Amino acid sequence: MNRYQQRLEIIYDWMTEERISLVFFEDAEGRRDTAIRWLTGHPCDALLFLSVDRKSLLVPWDVNLAKVFSMAEAIVPYNEFKREPLKAVKFAADFFKLPSGSKIEIPPVTSYPGFLNFIEEFPLFDIICRKTCAASFIKELRIIKDEEEIAIIRKAADITNIIIHLLEKNVRSGKIKTEADAVMLIEYEARKRGCEGASFDILAAGPERSFCIHAFPSYTGASFGGQGLSILDFGIRYCGYCTDVTLTFVRDASRQQKKMANLVDEAFEDALDMLVNGNNISDASMAVDRLFAKTKKQMAHGLGHGIGLDVHEYPYIKSNSAEQWALSPGMVFTLEPGLYDPIHGGCRLENDILMTEDGYEVLTEASIIWL
Amino acid sequence: MNRYQQRLEIIYDWMTEERISLVFFEDAEGRRDTAIRWLTGHPCDALLFLSVDRKSLLVPWDVNLAKVFSMAEAIVPYNEFKREPLKAVKFAADFFKLPSGSKIEIPPVTSYPGFLNFIEEFPLFDIICRKTCAASFIKELRIIKDEEEIAIIRKAADITNIIIHLLEKNVRSGKIKTEADAVMLIEYEARKRGCEGASFDILAAGPERSFCIHAFPSYTGASFGGQGLSILDFGIRYCGYCTDVTLTFVRDASRQQKKMANLVDEAFEDALDMLVNGNNISDASMAVDRLFAKTKKQMAHGLGHGIGLDVHEYPYIKSNSAEQWALSPGMVFTLEPGLYDPIHGGCRLENDILMTEDGYEVLTEASIIWL
Repeated sequence: MNRYQQRLEIIYDWMTEERISLVFFEDAEGRRDTAIRWLTGHPCDALLFLSVDRKSLLVPWDVNLAKVFSMAEAIVPYNEFKREPLKAVKFAADFFKLPSGSKIEIPPVTSYPGFLNFIEEFPLFDIICRKTCAASFIKELRIIKDEEEIAIIRKAADITNIIIHLLEKNVRSGKIKTEADAVMLIEYEARKRGCEGASFDILAAGPERSFCIHAFPSYTGASFGGQGLSILDFGIRYCGYCTDVTLTFVRDASRQQKKMANLVDEAFEDALDMLVNGNNISDASMAVDRLFAKTKKQMAHGLGHGIGLDVHEYPYIKSNSAEQWALSPGMVFTLEPGLYDPIHGGCRLENDILMTEDGYEVLTEASIIWL
Repeated sequence: MNRYQQRLEIIYDWMTEERISLVFFEDAEGRRDTAIRWLTGHPCDALLFLSVDRKSLLVPWDVNLAKVFSMAEAIVPYNEFKREPLKAVKFAADFFKLPSGSKIEIPPVTSYPGFLNFIEEFPLFDIICRKTCAASFIKELRIIKDEEEIAIIRKAADITNIIIHLLEKNVRSGKIKTEADAVMLIEYEARKRGCEGASFDILAAGPERSFCIHAFPSYTGASFGGQGLSILDFGIRYCGYCTDVTLTFVRDASRQQKKMANLVDEAFEDALDMLVNGNNISDASMAVDRLFAKTKKQMAHGLGHGIGLDVHEYPYIKSNSAEQWALSPGMVFTLEPGLYDPIHGGCRLENDILMTEDGYEVLTEASIIWL
């Protein structure tokens, strides 16, 4: 049984327990859902139907792509339904011979007007749209990575580390002069090494622009690595799996800039100290808050987030979060303390962490680099 | 009155007519909405509230960024509400002193479970979530670009054309050897010329991979421009506005490949012939369908789509579409006939069209390039 079949079996068991006859997932522009890739290998732009009879049906936009990537049992081109989800769902209900009265669970992101359409179009079925659902069940499952996923993530981290060291070398040598130079190096080196690409729009912000959490535009032709604080936030995607790291380059820093950089470094260490299996993950965030509060500073964003097929996934690492997660082996997430000031600029340090049986392992080698 | 104020006035009038007291827009990861940029200049990650009293309130994730870009009257950091939309909406209702019973329109993409939360949290207000709404009204308004927008789009097209010709030159000279080489040239030249970036993940597919509509991954280190058909689909974003073009490079083509390329060229011309003010826009798509049907071919995707602040926006150009649009001056959209074959590869030609008082203007200079 391959990893996709293993995962499907878990979902089929869940459907049996929940008495759901049909569930579907949608990955489309503006409604991305990597659950389809996690369950079948198919990377994008498709509907996936699962039946409680333990059968799967993929409805991809590009059937040629599906033939290469997908492990679903049946494939029907989305164009046969004019790419209209309702038509595809009707087909699936027929295809799986759903008795009337069956429960069909639709994605929890279905809009309220969209939900009303479903109710109207499927009077013979029990349409269910709820927050706690197959999609949320899968998100929870994905928090703990399996061995194969961890091996892929380690490889992704290795490539990320090679790029980190190339970046440092080329900024030091003056070969990287602009934000665009830094990004080009990352994009080129990543693809050369077989990555699917960057895991998000790379953020390169020289001293003039680093005051923003996420600079806009994400990078420009402006100078990078000059006097002050320059932020470089990037990740790569390898076999679907994401890394996410942030370097800060510091040159001829003012007293305040030095203070910020040292504080961020210290915050990262304080957060690491809280990574003990069984601890609540938000303890790390509260440790950073306490440190920053000592100098009347506050962090404008969360401390970190899970990474996997999505660059942002469970668990989220925030103070006073409603969602609580106990640290457990197999979790992979970022820690990214940062401070931003409209005058002095911004500083952020981000690395990717794997929880193991023995504690934690820092997979990536990002740092604050003093030029 | 600047262009943002002018646009807001139209929305305030609409709200008065519809008796909506408060409407809000959300731009967030997974729920992008460029309406906020269109209405205020603020580029990303924010909530925007408009009151029927003709006042605006922006709630941005990054307040430093908002101070640079946004024209909204009031700005309150999203962190004050722990980045929870419900809390921000409660604040806005207080801020604008909404009488109980007022209608609050929430985004039409609000999920059904999310809608139930609103109903529960705002028992004193009339929560409205519908398909025909402020958001859809704005999408319709944006179909016709104003003079300032057209000037920006022309500039974006000029930069795109410079890059098209550089690409042709560098593929011919052999300087571009791989998919990654082609993409790097585009990214670099675009940012150098002040673009905000690529308008979407650039698709570069050499002969081995061009059979997919959208190659996956979007580009690799594989060879580009060799024997057969290579597709390069890219766009740039300038002051927020997108272009979107596709070149196909043909080298030492087989009989079938030549036939496909010539047919796509012909399809593009047939589509242009249908661009007459007042005509239904889907006529262009039906003309292409007729041409392809003669050789028993079918197009696996729509013929084109509007471009603007979004790379895909109204009007959509599809055959037998439920949505009908009469061609009118100020519309800007793509035409992109394409054919794909698992054995022979794919061929697509895409250019950006502006409708004028006199007819149409092809703004971009993409072509099928015979090497």
